Amino acid sequence: MALRTLDSKNAAELDKELMSTGAFSIDQLMELAGLSVSQAVYKIQPPSKGKRVLIACGPGNNGGDGLVAGRHLWHYGYEPTMYYPKHTKNELYERLSQQLKDLDIPFTEDFTSAIDQTDLIVDSIFGFSFSGEVREPFPAVISALRDTTKPVLAVDAPSSWNIEDGPPDSGPGKGFMPDALISLTAPKPLVKWFKRRHFVGGRFLSKKMAEKYGLDMPPYEGIDQIVEVPVEGQGEKL
Amino acid sequence: MALRTLDSKNAAELDKELMSTGAFSIDQLMELAGLSVSQAVYKIQPPSKGKRVLIACGPGNNGGDGLVAGRHLWHYGYEPTMYYPKHTKNELYERLSQQLKDLDIPFTEDFTSAIDQTDLIVDSIFGFSFSGEVREPFPAVISALRDTTKPVLAVDAPSSWNIEDGPPDSGPGKGFMPDALISLTAPKPLVKWFKRRHFVGGRFLSKKMAEKYGLDMPPYEGIDQIVEVPVEGQGEKL
Repeated sequence: MALRTLDSKNAAELDKELMSTGAFSIDQLMELAGLSVSQAVYKIQPPSKGKRVLIACGPGNNGGDGLVAGRHLWHYGYEPTMYYPKHTKNELYERLSQQLKDLDIPFTEDFTSAIDQTDLIVDSIFGFSFSGEVREPFPAVISALRDTTKPVLAVDAPSSWNIEDGPPDSGPGKGFMPDALISLTAPKPLVKWFKRRHFVGGRFLSKKMAEKYGLDMPPYEGIDQIVEVPVEGQGEKL
Repeated sequence: MALRTLDSKNAAELDKELMSTGAFSIDQLMELAGLSVSQAVYKIQPPSKGKRVLIACGPGNNGGDGLVAGRHLWHYGYEPTMYYPKHTKNELYERLSQQLKDLDIPFTEDFTSAIDQTDLIVDSIFGFSFSGEVREPFPAVISALRDTTKPVLAVDAPSSWNIEDGPPDSGPGKGFMPDALISLTAPKPLVKWFKRRHFVGGRFLSKKMAEKYGLDMPPYEGIDQIVEVPVEGQGEKL
């Protein structure tokens, strides 16, 4: 049975509620989200199968999850490289970047070269709040993600996909189908069009919040922060 | 070979450095510390062997680690109960407590009854900054931890032990030898006298910081936030 989904409006409301009455800080939630992303990378490709991970980070919280994931991946023995072209001036993102620099993790400005020299790519460019046009410099990045033969893990949404309506009919994201997706907290409606490996992560949802937002408690096992769930996509639209 | 240790002065300095030049927030570090504690509980006793966990939290950061651990343990399927008699008025601890209340995790004021009705106890009363006398209401709690036949996991230090000199010669902690210890970031000198299962957790130490403080990078495996290390204690002093 498919897990119930969370649209972008409710995803924003749930986040807001977690950080107000839920009493979580964004540091905490982003740490747990990024940890989930790192565990999904490990499941897809342990470091023994390829250590080089290129992490493409967007300007918002999806990018922040990628920054956290990069640090954990380094600790697991990977060799992460960060692509973070729109470094938002925000105290949290500055700190997460500093933590990576203290591990001597390189930041690259040349995505095209970097994608040639990696074993796996994390797409943490846009998340559940994305809508509209893909702005510079990301169209070329999304084209490269679409065209690469290397495995791509998307965080919360394949970047450029519409959260409710799935893959775009035009633009660089047309035909972009990452090899894996990790949905944070709960899947978004776009999973209807997603045909590959699907993980859910972010093991902090309470039963009360799940009920309130009409969500399922994902069937996590043991101490795992992620769980692989059946693929729902029919892929009619691509 | 024994892991090198971190005395209380250097532990305080390292924490301070992590949160200044290291750019970590206390929310992040406490989340990762508490996550490590929860993983050690799982290693000692998975929920299939006993779900009830009593978590004794002190007034400081060691108690905060226990608050975080309680939340993760709930998500793993345990039934945690919190004992937190000296609830410090601190924004972070208030939030961590609220997160537990939102999961309907009970807080008890009666440690003696609670210890009878649990399967395992986490001692997160005092950590690396403890010295001197055990203040009320903790002497009776530490006596109960010493006398119980149920497994006890101590966080960073068996409470009442001196960080450098180990087990006390008198008072409620005389003869207190928990079944397991999780050292956070690095073992403290007291491990010389610790004779049972020993874990290290807190997978965020950089090589630079390890070098600066004369520490080893613990041999973590896979995505684990903890690792079990050989026991060093000769136990001469008990």
